[in-house]
This record gives sequence, C-alpha cells and structure tokens, in this order.
Amino acid sequence: MTTHLAEEPACAIHDPGAGVSDFGLDREGLRACYDRVRQTTEALCSPLEVEDYVIQSMPDASPAKWHLAHTSWFFETFVLSSWEGGLAPVDSRYGYLFNSYYNAVGERIARDRRGLLSRPTVAEVYRYRSAVDDRVREFLDRSADDELDRVRAAFILGLNHEQQHQELIVTDVKHGLAANPLKPSYRGEGGERAAAQPSDLASGPPRWVEFPGGVRPIGHDGGRFAFDNEGPRHEQLVPPFALADRPVTNREFLAFLEDGGYDRPQFWLSDGWYARSRNGWTGPLYWEREEGAWRSFTLDGLRPLGPDEPVCHVSFYEADAYARWAGARLATEAEWETAAVLSGAVVDGNFLESARFHPAAVPATTSPGSSKAPSQLFGDVWEWTQSPYTPYRGFKPAAGALGEYNGKFMCNQIILRGGSCASPRSHIRPTYRNFFPPESRWQFTGIRLAKDV
Amino acid sequence: MTTHLAEEPACAIHDPGAGVSDFGLDREGLRACYDRVRQTTEALCSPLEVEDYVIQSMPDASPAKWHLAHTSWFFETFVLSSWEGGLAPVDSRYGYLFNSYYNAVGERIARDRRGLLSRPTVAEVYRYRSAVDDRVREFLDRSADDELDRVRAAFILGLNHEQQHQELIVTDVKHGLAANPLKPSYRGEGGERAAAQPSDLASGPPRWVEFPGGVRPIGHDGGRFAFDNEGPRHEQLVPPFALADRPVTNREFLAFLEDGGYDRPQFWLSDGWYARSRNGWTGPLYWEREEGAWRSFTLDGLRPLGPDEPVCHVSFYEADAYARWAGARLATEAEWETAAVLSGAVVDGNFLESARFHPAAVPATTSPGSSKAPSQLFGDVWEWTQSPYTPYRGFKPAAGALGEYNGKFMCNQIILRGGSCASPRSHIRPTYRNFFPPESRWQFTGIRLAKDV
Amino acid sequence: MTTHLAEEPACAIHDPGAGVSDFGLDREGLRACYDRVRQTTEALCSPLEVEDYVIQSMPDASPAKWHLAHTSWFFETFVLSSWEGGLAPVDSRYGYLFNSYYNAVGERIARDRRGLLSRPTVAEVYRYRSAVDDRVREFLDRSADDELDRVRAAFILGLNHEQQHQELIVTDVKHGLAANPLKPSYRGEGGERAAAQPSDLASGPPRWVEFPGGVRPIGHDGGRFAFDNEGPRHEQLVPPFALADRPVTNREFLAFLEDGGYDRPQFWLSDGWYARSRNGWTGPLYWEREEGAWRSFTLDGLRPLGPDEPVCHVSFYEADAYARWAGARLATEAEWETAAVLSGAVVDGNFLESARFHPAAVPATTSPGSSKAPSQLFGDVWEWTQSPYTPYRGFKPAAGALGEYNGKFMCNQIILRGGSCASPRSHIRPTYRNFFPPESRWQFTGIRLAKDV
Amino acid sequence: MTTHLAEEPACAIHDPGAGVSDFGLDREGLRACYDRVRQTTEALCSPLEVEDYVIQSMPDASPAKWHLAHTSWFFETFVLSSWEGGLAPVDSRYGYLFNSYYNAVGERIARDRRGLLSRPTVAEVYRYRSAVDDRVREFLDRSADDELDRVRAAFILGLNHEQQHQELIVTDVKHGLAANPLKPSYRGEGGERAAAQPSDLASGPPRWVEFPGGVRPIGHDGGRFAFDNEGPRHEQLVPPFALADRPVTNREFLAFLEDGGYDRPQFWLSDGWYARSRNGWTGPLYWEREEGAWRSFTLDGLRPLGPDEPVCHVSFYEADAYARWAGARLATEAEWETAAVLSGAVVDGNFLESARFHPAAVPATTSPGSSKAPSQLFGDVWEWTQSPYTPYRGFKPAAGALGEYNGKFMCNQIILRGGSCASPRSHIRPTYRNFFPPESRWQFTGIRLAKDV
Repeated sequence: MTTHLAEEPACAIHDPGAGVSDFGLDREGLRACYDRVRQTTEALCSPLEVEDYVIQSMPDASPAKWHLAHTSWFFETFVLSSWEGGLAPVDSRYGYLFNSYYNAVGERIARDRRGLLSRPTVAEVYRYRSAVDDRVREFLDRSADDELDRVRAAFILGLNHEQQHQELIVTDVKHGLAANPLKPSYRGEGGERAAAQPSDLASGPPRWVEFPGGVRPIGHDGGRFAFDNEGPRHEQLVPPFALADRPVTNREFLAFLEDGGYDRPQFWLSDGWYARSRNGWTGPLYWEREEGAWRSFTLDGLRPLGPDEPVCHVSFYEADAYARWAGARLATEAEWETAAVLSGAVVDGNFLESARFHPAAVPATTSPGSSKAPSQLFGDVWEWTQSPYTPYRGFKPAAGALGEYNGKFMCNQIILRGGSCASPRSHIRPTYRNFFPPESRWQFTGIRLAKDV
Repeated sequence: MTTHLAEEPACAIHDPGAGVSDFGLDREGLRACYDRVRQTTEALCSPLEVEDYVIQSMPDASPAKWHLAHTSWFFETFVLSSWEGGLAPVDSRYGYLFNSYYNAVGERIARDRRGLLSRPTVAEVYRYRSAVDDRVREFLDRSADDELDRVRAAFILGLNHEQQHQELIVTDVKHGLAANPLKPSYRGEGGERAAAQPSDLASGPPRWVEFPGGVRPIGHDGGRFAFDNEGPRHEQLVPPFALADRPVTNREFLAFLEDGGYDRPQFWLSDGWYARSRNGWTGPLYWEREEGAWRSFTLDGLRPLGPDEPVCHVSFYEADAYARWAGARLATEAEWETAAVLSGAVVDGNFLESARFHPAAVPATTSPGSSKAPSQLFGDVWEWTQSPYTPYRGFKPAAGALGEYNGKFMCNQIILRGGSCASPRSHIRPTYRNFFPPESRWQFTGIRLAKDV
Repeated sequence: MTTHLAEEPACAIHDPGAGVSDFGLDREGLRACYDRVRQTTEALCSPLEVEDYVIQSMPDASPAKWHLAHTSWFFETFVLSSWEGGLAPVDSRYGYLFNSYYNAVGERIARDRRGLLSRPTVAEVYRYRSAVDDRVREFLDRSADDELDRVRAAFILGLNHEQQHQELIVTDVKHGLAANPLKPSYRGEGGERAAAQPSDLASGPPRWVEFPGGVRPIGHDGGRFAFDNEGPRHEQLVPPFALADRPVTNREFLAFLEDGGYDRPQFWLSDGWYARSRNGWTGPLYWEREEGAWRSFTLDGLRPLGPDEPVCHVSFYEADAYARWAGARLATEAEWETAAVLSGAVVDGNFLESARFHPAAVPATTSPGSSKAPSQLFGDVWEWTQSPYTPYRGFKPAAGALGEYNGKFMCNQIILRGGSCASPRSHIRPTYRNFFPPESRWQFTGIRLAKDV
Repeated sequence: MTTHLAEEPACAIHDPGAGVSDFGLDREGLRACYDRVRQTTEALCSPLEVEDYVIQSMPDASPAKWHLAHTSWFFETFVLSSWEGGLAPVDSRYGYLFNSYYNAVGERIARDRRGLLSRPTVAEVYRYRSAVDDRVREFLDRSADDELDRVRAAFILGLNHEQQHQELIVTDVKHGLAANPLKPSYRGEGGERAAAQPSDLASGPPRWVEFPGGVRPIGHDGGRFAFDNEGPRHEQLVPPFALADRPVTNREFLAFLEDGGYDRPQFWLSDGWYARSRNGWTGPLYWEREEGAWRSFTLDGLRPLGPDEPVCHVSFYEADAYARWAGARLATEAEWETAAVLSGAVVDGNFLESARFHPAAVPATTSPGSSKAPSQLFGDVWEWTQSPYTPYRGFKPAAGALGEYNGKFMCNQIILRGGSCASPRSHIRPTYRNFFPPESRWQFTGIRLAKDV
C-alpha cells in the first residue's frame, strides 16, 4: 500500500505490512521491508525545508535530521557492527552525536543540545543514511545464514524502532512549526488535502460498551515481533468494566473547559494541578482562542477546531481531570487490552498511512449503531490509561545495550494504547504499550472514558 | 503502654492502642485515645530547643511547630467547626498558616515558606494546641449523640492524621539536625539509651520465604478505621513469589556500594540515574565516610554504621538498583500484603514506642531458624515496593475537603509497606499504604528483596 | 546619649560617639566604646522572640543570631587570635558557621543556609558573645602596648563592622517579620512610640540647591577611621550641578506609580525593566494596597502610607526610573559628597538612635526656607547615586583576610550615600560609601534628585 | 579596499571607508556606502551552510539569518517607514520576528527563542534583504531632499548598526560551530589562509608607556557620526598613568593559569569567583587541553595555541584577576582614550577586512623599539577597561525608539575599547565605547595592563 504525500510521486508513505514483525522473513522479504520503512521516513521529511530539519523546539523533541541519522546509527550499531570481519563505521564521530540513550554503547551529546548542531548538514545526513542503506543491503546480500540469524531480532527491532521515529518526526515537526509565530504549514499553503478539512459530523453522546470480568491473558505471546515490554504474556484478574464507544471529542472537552475545568482543583491530581499552574495551561496544546473562536494548530496550519474530532494533545493530567469531571475514569491497560481483544477490533483506521496527520471524527454511520464494539480503538489518538508503566511479572530486559530499550524507563510514566494518526499501521498491536510522562502533550494523545460495571 | 523518653516523667510516648481505629468507642474511650495521641506528639517535641521547632531544612519537611499547629487545625476544621452553634476558630488567621493542602478549605501559605514564620511562637502554638484540646474535650462532654456521630469518622481520622505527623516530626527533626554542621543530638549528648547503640549481630545471608499464588483479597474491609486509599477490598491474582526473610542490611548495601553500584548505570532506572547524578548521591542519606570508616547520622548524633541493621534512608531508585544488582526485585504491594497476611505476622516490633528512632538488627536467635515467616515486616524500616501508588478498583474519595486526603496524590509516587521505627505501632496494619515520590530519602525507608518462584 | 528602646531600662541604644573612629583612644576609651557598641547590638535584639532570631527570609538576609555571633567571631578572628600566647577559640566549630565571606580564613557554610541552623541556640550565642566580651576585656586589660597597637586598627574596624550589622539586624528583622502573614510588630502591639506615627506634614515641591563646579577633593583623608574604600583622597573634576533640597516623598512616588510608571518601559533601564517583570514589582517593597488605600509594612506593623515621608525600599532601578519620569537624574557620588561638604551639613538627624526605625517627613519649618542647603542628607534613607561602585584611583586593599572586606565587591553594585534611620549616627561620614546591587530593596533606600546646571 | 574571502570572487569584504560616518555624503555616496556594507554582511555569510544560519547556541548569540533580517528590518523601520506616501512593509509579520529590543516599536519574540525559527528560510531572508535593498535604492533615487535629510542620521546609523552585526555574525557563528563536537571550520577544511597560521614571534616582556595627567577632553565632538553614548564631549581630570605597549599574550596568560590563577580567590572579584565556579571556568573560552598541549578553537577549527598572540575570549573577571595577579590593573576608559589620542595611534591593524578573524601576534619589528606608543590599540582584541558603562555628563538619548539604542543598557556592563579582528575598520574610533556584561566571553575580548605613575 502506498499513500502519496503531497503528490510527490517519488516520496511516498509505504506501509511495510505485517512483514515488519515477522521473524521468518527471507532475505528478499527483509530487504523489501527495510526499503519501505526507510523510504517512508524520508517521505515524511520530503516537505521540509532544510531549515526545518535543524531546530529543536524543546528538550523532548529532536531535530528531524537527528531522527534520520539516529535511526541509521541504530542499524549500524546493532546490526552491522557485529558482522564478521566487520565494517568500519561510516563516520566514527557519529556515535557520539546520534546515540540516544544507550549507556552501554558510550558517551553522547546531551539531549537538549541536539538543536545546536548545524553539522553534519542535511545533505550529509542523507549521505550517511544512504551509506548505511548500502551496507545493510550488502549485509543482506552477503552475510552467512548464521550471521543473519544472529542479528535477525535486532534487524526487526531496527525496523520497528524506525517506525517509532517516524511518529516522532511528525510530532516533533509539528511542535517546531507551532513554535513559529508564522504558523507555517508542513505541506505548504496548498498542501492540505480534502481529508484534512475539519469534519463536523453530528454525533450524539458516547455509549458504554460493557465487558465481562475474569482472569485474562495479558501481553504478547512472542510468536511475532513485539517490544520486550509487551511480555511476558501472563494472567490478570480483570473485573467487569465498560468503555466508551469512542474517544472524547473537542466539543465535549470544550464543555469541560467552559465549565471552569482548568480552574477547579477538585478535578485534578495534585501534581496535575501543579503542572497546570506552572505551565499556565488553559486548554489543550495547540489550542488558541481568537475573537471568541477556538482554533488549533495542525500540520496544515491553524484551523477552526473540529468539534467532533477526538480531542488530542492533552496530558494525562488533563485526561484524568476530564474523566473525573465527567463522572467516569480512565481505563486500566488490562481493561483496554481486554476490550480490544474481546471486541475483535481490527488494527485499522486513521494511521500514518492516511497522510492526514490529524485525528478524524467518527463517521456518522458507525456511531448511531448498537455499539457492540468501541470504535477508533486503533489510530487517531493514543488513549491515556490510568496505569503507570511497570514491568509485567517476569519481565527480563535483553542482555547488553538493547536491554536499555524499554526497561529503564519503567518509572514516572503512564501507559497509552492504540496508536495515533501519526503511527504506522503495521507498528501497532492490541498489546502495544506506549508510555509518556504524565505531563507530556506533544504526542497525539487523547481520552477514552471507562467505568466500573 | 508508656515509654519514657529521655527520662522526662511528664513527657512520655503513649501507645493509644487499638482504640485509635475503633469506630465504636464511647466518649470516655475517645477522650482517652485523644489524650494519649496528643500527649505523645508533645512528648516527641519535648527534647527540642525552641529554635529547633522553627527551621525547615527542605520544602518536603516542615517545622516541628507547624506540625503541632497543623494537627490542631485539623481537629478544629474537620471536627469542631461543624458543631451546632459552633465555635469561632481559636485564631481566624491560623487557617491560612496551618492548612496543608486542602484546596476546598481555602488559600494557604506556600509549603516551602513554612520555615520563614517565626510567629506564632512555640509558646503560642502550645497555647493554640491547648485551646483546641479544651474545645475538643468540651465537645466530647457536651455534644449531642448525633452531633458526635456525624463527626466520629473525622475524629478518628484526626487521631490517625496526628499519628502520621508524629512520624514526620521524627523524620523532619532528624533532617533539620543533620543540616547543621554541629550534628547535634536530638536528645542531647547524654540522651542516648543502651538500645540506641549500634548492634553488630552476626547474621548470615537472607533466606527466601515462599508464598503460593492465587486470587487473593487485597485491601481493607472497612470494619475498623483505615484510610480511604486502603479500600475497597477487592481481589487480585497474585502469582507465587518469595520474599527475603529480613530487610537488606547496611553490610549488604555496602557491598553494592563498594562494587561500584552508584557508578554503574546498568542497575538504575533512567530517572534514578538522573536523580543520582543531579543530587550527587554516593550512598544513602546520612551516610558519611571519614578516614575510611562509614558513619551515619542518627537522632543520637553521628554513629558508626551498624552493619547488621537494616539499611535505611534510601530512595526507591536506590532500592530498585540494589535489587537489580542482587539479581532480585522488589515486591509488588499485593505480594507484600499477601505475605503479611499468610505468614500471620503480628504488628509488633521496633516502632515509635521503642523510642529508639532507628532501625535495629535482627536478634541472632530469630535469624538462623527455618524461616517459615519473614521477620521485621512491621516496624524498623518502610519497605519500598515496586508498585506505583494507584487507586484500588472502585476507590471513591470522600466528599468534601477530606476527599483530598489521599486520592489526589495517586501519581508519581511509590507504595511503601510495614511502618518504621518512627511509626506509632497502633497506626500500622497489613493493608496500610504509605507512599512517597521515588526520589525521597528522608523517611526511614529500606529494602526487602523479592523474586518469582 | 542613650535612647531607651521599648522602655526596657536594661537594653538601650547607646551612641558610642566619635570614639568609634578615633585611633588615639586609650584602653579605657576603647573599652567604653566597645561596651556601648556591643550593648546596642543586643538592645536591638531585645524585643525579639527566640524564634525571630532563627529565620532567614531570603539569601541576602541573615538570622539575627547569626549577626550576633558573626560580629563576635570577627573580634575573635581579627583581634584576639593574634594575641601573643593566644587564646583558643571559644568554640573551634564556630569559624565554619560564622565566617561571612573571608576566603583567606577558611571554608564556611553557604550563605543561603544560615536559616537552617537551630543550633547554637540563642542562649548559646549570647554565651558566646559574653565569652568573647570577657576575652576582649581581658585583652584590653592585659595586652602589652605593642600588642594592642598591632591590632588597634582591626579593633576599630571591628566596632564599625558591628555597627554595620546593627543596621542589618534592623533591616533583616523587618524583612523576616514582613514575610509573615500575621505581619507582627517588632516591638509588640503597644510598642510603637509617638515618633513612629505617620507624619503628614504639608510640603511643597522640592527646591533645587545649586553647587559650583571645579576640581574637588573626594574621599577620606585617613586621619581617623574610615573604610578602605573611602580612600585614597584624590581629586575629581566635578561640573556644576544641583541637588533637590530633600528626598522624594511617598506622595511624589505615588504620582509616578499612578502615572503608570511601573508599566512604561521608556523610563526604565533594560535590566531594571527585566527585574521589575521577573519580580512582579508594582510598587516599593512593603507597600500594599487594600480597598484603595496604600499601606506599608514598618517595624511597627502595617501603617497607612505617610505621604510626606521619604519614599524608601526602592531599588536603584526604581530610583533611576523615577528620576527619568521626573525629568531629572540621580547624583554622582562625587556630586553628593561635594554637596555634603560645601553645604556644611552636619551628620545628624533620624538615625538608629532615634529608635524610630522609619524615615520621617521633613518638619514644615525647614522646608519653606530659602533652601541654601539640602536637608536630610544624613539619616532617614540611603540615597541611591548613579555611580557604580568602583575603586578610587590608587586604592589598595589591606593585606591578608581583611583585604577582602570591601575591594572584592567592586562590581555590579551601586553607591549609596548618607546613612538611614537604621544606621548608627557615629558610623556615618560625608565620605561614607555604601553599596548594594541595583535590584536590592530591603535596606532603607530612597531617592534624591539631581540635575545639570 | 576589497578583501576576498575564501577566494569567492562574488563575495568580498568591502571596506566602506570613512563615508560610513560622513553626514555630508550625497546620494551617490550614500548608495555606494550602503552597497558595500550590505554586501559585506552577505560575504561574511557566504561560507555558511544553510543549517549554520539557523542555530542559536546560547541566548546571547543570534542565528546568522536573524542578523541578516534584523539589519534589514532596521532600515525598513527607521528609514523607509517614514517616507512620505510610505511603503508597506515587505512582510508585516517580520516586525515581530526581527525587532531586537525596541519597546517603542512593539512586541517581539523572546530573545532566547530566535533559534526555534526555521521560517522564514534562509532563501526567504535573502529575498527580504533584497526587497529592502530595492526599496532603499528607490528611496535614494526618488526621495525629496528634505525627506532624505530627515532620515539621514538614521540612515547612517543603519549602516553603523549593520557593521555591529557583522561583528556579531563572526562571533556568533564561531560560538555555534564551537558548540558542535565535530568542531567544523567556518571556511571549510582548506579554507584557512597563510595569515591564519599560528604565529610564534619571539616577544619580550611588555613595556610601559607613560602618559601625563591633566584635565582632558573625553568623548566625541559630533562633527561626524558617532553613537550617542560617545558624547557629549566633556572634560575629565585624568591623573598620570602608564599603559602596557601591547595586549597580554597567550603565553603570559598561561603563566597565570599555571600559577593556579583559576583556583586562588584572592585575585578575583567576588562576583567573578562566583562566575568562575558556577561556569566551571578553567581557562579562556575555546581553550582545550589535550595530552598536555593547549589548543583553541578558531574560525579555522582547532589550532595549537599561538603563544605570542593576544589572549582573547576572556571575561572582565578574568582580565581583572589577571591584572591583579600581574601586580597591575586595567585602564579606565578615560585613560585608554587619552592614550589613544596622545599617542596619535591610527585606526588600522587587524580588523574584519583582514579576513583573519583571529588576533595576531605583534610583528617582531615593532616590539623591541623604544615604545613611545602602545601598539595594537586598534583591532585584534577589544580591551576590557575597569570602567562600568555609565552615561557621560549631559548624555541625552535620542527621542523615540532610537533612544533605546544605547542608553537603556547603562547598568551592569563594562566598557571595552579599540575594536577587534571582527570589527570593520571604518566602524572604530578612539572614542568608541563598546560594552558587555562582565561575564561575557564570546566576543574577541582581551587584556591590556595599566598602572598608576
């Protein structure tokens, strides 16, 4: 599947498909997957001006060229470097620049200084990518079978890792453009597609979808690729619960805001109230009010707020406060996963490949139905759960540097589920555990209500 | 039970006994309990100089006189103020000064400015306490039965609340004295008791005590007083596990330290490594090394490190790093509670009433036994679990201001269990959930290892 | 001269008189001076509660007991320690606690941690003072003549140093009490004297007093004691200028404020505008507006603003902005000194000894005169000049630790002249150079206008 | 005079000559001057990659493209906008982006956020410059004589303003490249010229050049262009003094460093010692020690330290500490100006036009002479004086927004004199007053010793 971005035929978002998590792929399949993933990363950058690649608008965000280089460094470090006979690194100085956080691999530049690097230039970074691509392809062509098998897991991890950075490129570019008083559009003034217009579908109140309790298997079974934090699969006692059939919309969140939601501490966690006060939050990130009308900054520039679109760019604190105001709560991650499995929801919807880069309102035809199943579990917005990010029972991080991938972040973060409009479709699973600090707002993060039954 | 503190006959630590959580007490019983709790608070302050009551050595700690006043304000606000006919507050300006965090009750002085208040003086605060005591006793004498019943829960809560502040007085005074280069002793130079001497009991390695898995009831059943966060009682699926039969000792922790534990990021959570670096941690709080020998600051001044005493004043991050270094992990709070219930451990041991104010080594006679049950689950040191502080399923905070007591802190904190040498014995239960941010070290916090079986 | 403070006969403000700067005093004279200075320091503290001695309301302010101890440490370190045969320090640990900033004398506690020290207690500090007093008197009795002569200059410096801390005790106690929402009065509710009532003398506009230009001698000639920064005496070319005949009043400053002075950047230095914005200044320190009326916090509590009193507690930035708004400027320090000398102004007025602790309005009888001389040059308020604090040509700091007294602060500070209502009268001279950072407001700092002629 | 930069014939550093401060130039002359100034700015940027234009390596530095745009905005705002009939701004949104600090002209983006702007792109900024150039030329062609005369002073100011930003482009680009671990060279690997090689001329100790005292005229007489802060010309009494005949060299400064200069507080101002400690200074900015050898980062990359080159990139604090260590002092600005005038020094030497971008050692032939005159007063390095930046007597800033150019910064800054290797030659005068905060190090700032005689 190919989605053309801004009608640039040479630069397209390729869906690498299920192969991206298939440990059994042959060399040809690996290469096809690799090519699609790598090309998609570059396609996402193709609308950027050179200058857009450079800036870092906050310590949590990285320059686009850093993402381009870091994902290449990842293959170089964790796949190519162990190839017998070996290949010297393309540039021995790049390890220091493009290591993200792997202590076991060595020192690195401070995270908040990535935006101070004008060199290597964008062109040099693309040359670096190209050199790594050549070597990866040479490796796929020439490596012995046992050599390939030894790094097969790391290779697949590299593909999924790059997909994560595709999402970050979208969110970081958005944050960088939003920091500019000119409020530029990612795809240029004429770049927005019909699909990106605000959708004002009439929608009624959300419906509750009930799920039975029981001892439920939770987590990934390991047959195909999953991140280490999704396992081991284990049992949890999940009590009966209900989920809203769709995410909270802008219209609904606006009602909270207009009811003084941001000024009434009784709805907020203590840390949340402090975050709101310290940061001066008066609405979701990217919302602006001008002459009585709300607009939000999108990758297609400032747009009137779409009332029936899922609210997004809210922190966990705002999601939690909204839920309390609404007389409900957020789901636990076990509830969310149970709902996804029991309702048989298919991983499809408004993902990166739609090239919309913004959550979409539920089509009217799905909403008024009998709501046997929640809609939009996948895509559109990441859904904050109430679950802190902790290891599943029996979790063991991998040996070596790759063990730092997930495990060391299991503190002070909250689980999100379901993927967003910036996630590659093939990257998401019902067991997928995303995590961010409760104060984060620059991802496409939204709210789905839950309650006890 | 009365423990004389520093041989001052008039000032003693009274154990109020089980009455402190008994909703069925008559007026006489309530008054006896009240008197004992209030007198104990003052007994804990009796060794202090006037100057010691004033200082605030960090934003998390409060001056002793603030604790004395705040606990009185609590009774005034949540018990007396609703008394029919009413009583004017003792001083209408005190609400602003001595409200801790109850948004519903009004504005208050910033937490980190409590140490800037020289007035009311210590004598005035004691007069305030005394005035509140008079009114509470008058209330107990004169209130109608329905009036008493309406505030009975708040009254019992006020007693337990004051017990929490007794523990904080001990830990905050310790922190304040430790900030002083003179390293003064809480009870004066001759104040230390035999019990406070370092105990170097020969102790072997810890033994594992195994517990079976199963669906277990977790949380308090509500028959007697418990904090709202301990309920509702509900079922969790607890897999089989093992706990160490005793907390980690100073000797053991020193081995971690000497093995480079504080310099090897592979043992640490990412946020923990950052906390260690930012704060310059090279050992537990209050440890000092001088001429090759380790000493720790205690309420009886600087003492040689007792090798067989439980290590304390470690953060969650250090506890977690130690466990990883030791090839084990921390317990979940469900595991800990299960172990406490299944092993039939009695809530007894080295509590506030021992007036030791420091964790004690396990007597040699208990240790070499067959270890059917873990020792020191209660008292000595709070044990960090691996569980973030989250609401139990179905948790509903109380209506009104008292609903702010616990619920709004359920984020970015970690559960500790079992009480410490600064906790009143009658205050602790197997279901008791203490919580602190993972970086906190000034409570008597220690480590017990766990593992899967 | 003795001024009784709050009618406590034993505790009085003694004016030590001119002896405090007389290098020729005999032993008896030195002792009399010493006694008066030391007793005055204690008299200033006599209205304090023990708790008031402990707090540090900001890093620039110090606890009263620290001042009591530091001034004693100064005599111990710079006078007694060099006595042949020597005296062991009263407490060897006090050097670390009570050294202010003398690098050459050793390490010290961080300035902003002085308020964390509950020990030594106030009583112990007074015992320390008393022990130092005994030793100083013993030294005066028993030292050989050459021993006395060797430290005579340091002894006189110690007296003047203690006078500086008398002023700081007044300003730091005021700042500490003001931080308290109870707004306590330094001398208690009934402690205010008639003199402390607001004085609303009708006063006309200020008059200009002109001074001729010329090459003028500036600085102290060294015949008697002066701080090293007052010399060497040297010539400067001072052009003709005029000074206002009195300081700016509250009424006048209020007109600036009500004209939007705090909201119009055109009047402000760039750093001043930034300071105003960062600190949220909307008026002088200690001003409050309630129900349309301005009040200011004084050492006698909150009082209505006295319209004809000199405005005080303004920063250099506010003084400079006011002057620009008024179409005038601040004086250079050479102009100020020239005016003081040429007008023959006597060092008298509202000083510490008046025990008023607040600037006073000009008596109506002085104001309407022909204004041949400016009034209130001395006392009431320190007058901000426009001159940065720099060394006079040929300035050489003393050898050794005492060379750190003044010289190392000659950067980023602004000169003030004339003394205030908190300065001992005998401490001030026409050549006296006080200095504070331009953002400081907690001293009694005011404004006198100047202009070119 | 034209100096070719990196042999790019189209991009050259043009010396606009004396015309840049000539109020009597005709239209042709103004245009020639304008063209040379504008082309030089662009020539300085010509070696940059697009990415290099974007970064902001600290709040004090600005991106190169911001300098390009701001200098154009200056002409648009202060010259073109008042043209009768007027011209709409090239882009009405640019005022917000490219106003530096003129409150009277409106709001602006925070200074430390200039590096977050990827748009307008470098190409758009050049188009903006070009559009402004077209309009300026049209204005020069078509304006009425009185229209031209009305803005003549602002026009000349605009030229000199742009020259200031030429220097800032050099220093800010250097700082940005230095922040990059790759340590890139401004002119590329082969870009360095013979002139840029380290020069190790044997040089003896500095000689003192004496100057007589007297009442001296100081400041600019206003016949030609000068910044408002250079006047009014007035008299000062300057005592006799001596200046070193050349700036302090790297060799000499290294002796200070190796004598423990950075570790001995006795040489430092108190604020300087604090700055050194807070910033971790152990040598001048851009110095690095590797395997025992000192190197410094230059615009041609890392080079061995040239021992006889003037030391540069030191703060006022380091300059002052060095002088104290050397038993000397810094000059006052009146002394410096007096020396420049009395010695008849010509404004020539190592300026921007040499395209060396680094201070040069004194040629051996000048040094051993009789030293009747100090060398290198102009060019090479700015020389820190001991004078804080204050207004000359009678100073009046211009009316309107241009009055904010200099006057509002007259606090907390120190005067530097003489220009540097990054200053355009035609921009510097004996009366020129540069100023920076005492902690600044990223300009080419050096040291010349002075002493009393």
